[in-house]
Amino acid sequence: MTSSQATASSPEAPNSTTELTSSGEAFGVAQAGPTPVSEADLNQHIEQALADYFAERLDDCTDLDPSFAEAARQLRAFVLDGGKRIRPRFAWWGWRAAGGDSEGPDAAATLRAVSSLELIQACALMHDDLIDDSDTRRGQPTVHRHFAMEHHQRALAGDGDRFGMSLAILLGDLALVWADDMLHSAGLDPHALNRALSPWQGMRTEVLAGQYSDINGQARQDDDPRTALRVAELKSASYTVRRPLQLGAEIAGADPTVLRALGDFGTDIGIAFQLRDDLLGVFGDPTVTGKPAGDDLREGKRTLLTAETLERAHAQGRKQTERLVRHVLDTASPSADDVDAVCEAMVSLGAVEAIEDRITELTDTALGTLRSTDIPESAVTNLEELAIRATKRSR
Amino acid sequence: MTSSQATASSPEAPNSTTELTSSGEAFGVAQAGPTPVSEADLNQHIEQALADYFAERLDDCTDLDPSFAEAARQLRAFVLDGGKRIRPRFAWWGWRAAGGDSEGPDAAATLRAVSSLELIQACALMHDDLIDDSDTRRGQPTVHRHFAMEHHQRALAGDGDRFGMSLAILLGDLALVWADDMLHSAGLDPHALNRALSPWQGMRTEVLAGQYSDINGQARQDDDPRTALRVAELKSASYTVRRPLQLGAEIAGADPTVLRALGDFGTDIGIAFQLRDDLLGVFGDPTVTGKPAGDDLREGKRTLLTAETLERAHAQGRKQTERLVRHVLDTASPSADDVDAVCEAMVSLGAVEAIEDRITELTDTALGTLRSTDIPESAVTNLEELAIRATKRSR
Repeated sequence: MTSSQATASSPEAPNSTTELTSSGEAFGVAQAGPTPVSEADLNQHIEQALADYFAERLDDCTDLDPSFAEAARQLRAFVLDGGKRIRPRFAWWGWRAAGGDSEGPDAAATLRAVSSLELIQACALMHDDLIDDSDTRRGQPTVHRHFAMEHHQRALAGDGDRFGMSLAILLGDLALVWADDMLHSAGLDPHALNRALSPWQGMRTEVLAGQYSDINGQARQDDDPRTALRVAELKSASYTVRRPLQLGAEIAGADPTVLRALGDFGTDIGIAFQLRDDLLGVFGDPTVTGKPAGDDLREGKRTLLTAETLERAHAQGRKQTERLVRHVLDTASPSADDVDAVCEAMVSLGAVEAIEDRITELTDTALGTLRSTDIPESAVTNLEELAIRATKRSR
Repeated sequence: MTSSQATASSPEAPNSTTELTSSGEAFGVAQAGPTPVSEADLNQHIEQALADYFAERLDDCTDLDPSFAEAARQLRAFVLDGGKRIRPRFAWWGWRAAGGDSEGPDAAATLRAVSSLELIQACALMHDDLIDDSDTRRGQPTVHRHFAMEHHQRALAGDGDRFGMSLAILLGDLALVWADDMLHSAGLDPHALNRALSPWQGMRTEVLAGQYSDINGQARQDDDPRTALRVAELKSASYTVRRPLQLGAEIAGADPTVLRALGDFGTDIGIAFQLRDDLLGVFGDPTVTGKPAGDDLREGKRTLLTAETLERAHAQGRKQTERLVRHVLDTASPSADDVDAVCEAMVSLGAVEAIEDRITELTDTALGTLRSTDIPESAVTNLEELAIRATKRSR
């Protein structure tokens, strides 16, 4: 029995969060009614929770300033129009793994709490697209491009690119603060919310540390595999899998054994997820991934795959290959032939196979951890499925 | 007696926030010990609370990644090296106005909670400097310039300006999430914290709405005084005065009359604060404000002062002056003579006097509201002093 269950709300007895809100003024403090969450439609539930939250906030925005409400609707479209909802799913199943009941009185509040992760992700993507100066995201213009085009179309004053950049910074900031607001107004039992703050706080700093470390590593042309691994741990493992799992588990009041097991599982699957991403960034089918093959190489992106390639080339005395890899990574627009040659070298040196082996090994270890822990069977099955989808995917 | 006092902590009996943190893992959950806060040194107390918080977080950062810890130290320097601490001060005196006791058991936690406003401000400044592409802040290079210079000095790979922009975005994001973390780990009584969320959430969205609306208004060359007033309300009045006051007052469990009075006082003083800023941006002494006179005009900044000037020129049929003002606002680098001529026109048309009258009127109304409300005398005196300092200042 978790403490959140112990103080759970019911329609007859308002929950303690509602009771606490004496002023009744905090935005969107929701009742955690006993609405069962149908897990076959988990993504739809997550999207509905987000849509409901946006509906509340957009009303406030219209009162503040109509043009700002227009921008906030951009954020809503960005969040609702796409994404695999991977972080809320991991968090949900972390909650279920720690004993959360999808038909119990805490299900609705938990769903809202874990859905807030999509708002952090919206900030991360908007600010990342700006940092990488990307043109498109999910086949649409990126947010800064969208606003820059709007600036042009409406013949506004000043520099269009700067206008686009400015609004993308602000909209990302808005997503970041709304993520917090959504978590804190989800209607969680205060004890559960307080426990959730540890992974929540850890996650947000870790993802920023990972992004920082990534940018810094690229600028320093750092080919140390340990740097690539640390970035993968912070930017992907922690942010995408480990911390979301722990967030859900803490809401449910998980015991230390379950928390630790989910942490280990999350780190392994999260790194495997990033390694798959690295492979797809170089070898992925452009019609599936939405970006051309070799794209990460052209962008000079240093990953464990490139580090492994360089290390193998060096160990095998293939100096020309080593030089070629560095040339492609360090040149703004390398030739298609050079990019192809690096792709081939990655295969022939055995780097690709090594990364594939690493993914398999990490996934096997993770699944072993899961099966040897006392976790409800449905949670094990679903976490396995999520894990395999994250590491064997083609996009 | 506020509810936060009712459940206050003491060294013998751990407070309920500590009790709630069963995992003991949340970052920086502090004990709200009965440390009296000496109000003569309020800024020093605020700075100490921030320094203590940074000390905790920087340890974690070093564990995550040493290069990231270096960046986080940049954030610490940015926050600790300057600033008037105006928002925490208003929040503190809002707390005192609503009955908070500076020698009571909640003083230390409240101090930490209100000090977190400086971290939101750090994000606002870093992202603003990026949006405005400013070179300096408080006589130092802005954060994005600092990182761009570092990129150059260390001969790093890629584009230095992009490197600077990227890290300034991330460091601003870090400040924004740490602001939340600091508030939530300040050691406030959970009821007090929950009440504080309403102004906290309102404030963060309102400041972004104000910034958005400002950028949008400049791009549309919007000379409607109502737009300028709405931006002032959101970006300054709400963010700088009204919401901080309400944050403090809600922590103390203020009654609705006090909350309403502080809200009215805050709106009036906050707008007056912005109007003073507008005047200083055009007429301020560069040796005092740190920026050249006429700077806001050269940047094409639309304010209530420019709107008032245009309206008066129009009403008095001074078409040439009207054209000149628009020319200076809409031209990237207007001539010094044209800028001087606009400054003179602002005076001769009576726009400056009108704004000065408005500041006086707003301040008088605000002080009247304060005096007619049942608020402890020391809070009234200090809020009066803060109000006068904010609206009569020369920088």
